[in-house]
Amino acid sequence: MPTVVDSSVTQFQTCIDACNKCMQACEECLTSCLKEADVQARVHCINMLRDCADICALASQWMSRGSMYAKQLCQVCATICDACATECAKFQDAHCKDCADACRKCADECRRMSA
Amino acid sequence: MPTVVDSSVTQFQTCIDACNKCMQACEECLTSCLKEADVQARVHCINMLRDCADICALASQWMSRGSMYAKQLCQVCATICDACATECAKFQDAHCKDCADACRKCADECRRMSA
Amino acid sequence: MPTVVDSSVTQFQTCIDACNKCMQACEECLTSCLKEADVQARVHCINMLRDCADICALASQWMSRGSMYAKQLCQVCATICDACATECAKFQDAHCKDCADACRKCADECRRMSA
Amino acid sequence: MPTVVDSSVTQFQTCIDACNKCMQACEECLTSCLKEADVQARVHCINMLRDCADICALASQWMSRGSMYAKQLCQVCATICDACATECAKFQDAHCKDCADACRKCADECRRMSA
Repeated sequence: MPTVVDSSVTQFQTCIDACNKCMQACEECLTSCLKEADVQARVHCINMLRDCADICALASQWMSRGSMYAKQLCQVCATICDACATECAKFQDAHCKDCADACRKCADECRRMSA
Repeated sequence: MPTVVDSSVTQFQTCIDACNKCMQACEECLTSCLKEADVQARVHCINMLRDCADICALASQWMSRGSMYAKQLCQVCATICDACATECAKFQDAHCKDCADACRKCADECRRMSA
Repeated sequence: MPTVVDSSVTQFQTCIDACNKCMQACEECLTSCLKEADVQARVHCINMLRDCADICALASQWMSRGSMYAKQLCQVCATICDACATECAKFQDAHCKDCADACRKCADECRRMSA
Repeated sequence: MPTVVDSSVTQFQTCIDACNKCMQACEECLTSCLKEADVQARVHCINMLRDCADICALASQWMSRGSMYAKQLCQVCATICDACATECAKFQDAHCKDCADACRKCADECRRMSA
């Protein structure tokens, strides 16, 4: 019975890197959104960023350990990254644009990984 | 657009408590399994416990914040708790029996919560 | 060489429970603060709540596993809980008052545990 | 009162990258140690790896958000990384050697960051 999906995690490296980048972009963007004058207009975005940062961090950790459930977690991660990208794309700041990019790339890698 | 599922988290309290208990049982059981003479026979169980502890901790945190994605995470949590219960039930130690119980209860609560 | 601090975690149960309660109070309070009309006045509080929720969750997990470093983590947790209590106490909402209480109790338990 | 340590996280990038690498090395090494014939001799190492992976993941997340407490968490992280490197260095496998290297580099970066 396979405990872990593969003896090598190299196959996951691109997705691990994308999740790490997306976690960082979400945490940075959340901190920056809180400083913006229109923070009240960003509440939904901020709540998305909280979840997106957390799920990216956990997906990175589970891929690193070769978890049986890494693919299933990456499917959820892709869904949340897509929604977070859509939300961030509504704002014009560099930090929101950068975060939307990181989310889209991470969603793509998570979909490929969990296919 | 609803950012969070409800203004009150009271509805989730039973499931939050079950997740906290299951996280604790999994971490305790993992530490105890590592001390058993037949640790080599428990490798698959140990890997299940790593994932189960983590997903229960995150599910508890997301229900607490009223995340839009709490239900989706609890579905994954239920799947992992069921599998972890099955694995723990194969061993006769008190810590494995207790953990299997906590996992089954948590799986039930997560299914009810995400229904 | 001791891998874990003790074979029983019962000694930590009060502190584990306090950390779980504080994590939940912080996540709830953060979600509620984001909905308040004066959210801009709460940015420092919100940033404290992010850290406090995370460290309480991790401290609970490390006590559950009987980590060698649980005491050291609980020292940091006590510092952050104290600061978060001070910040939450500046606001008059029920969620901030409740969170300040949970933070103070958790700080006390973490100090006792790490003594 | 400064909520976050700096408006730019670029100063932390080297340390964030080192924490991400160390988290990954620890999770991989833990999974590999569980498969080794002498797993019973590795129990202390495995328990170190659990803690080291978690604290590196959280340190990376807190530096990304510019947390006031990132330095304090990185001090604990450096202590744990040093101890984990010492433990991993006792074993001759490639995964333990690689993990010891990643832990040493991460400890150095965390010390520099928290200085």
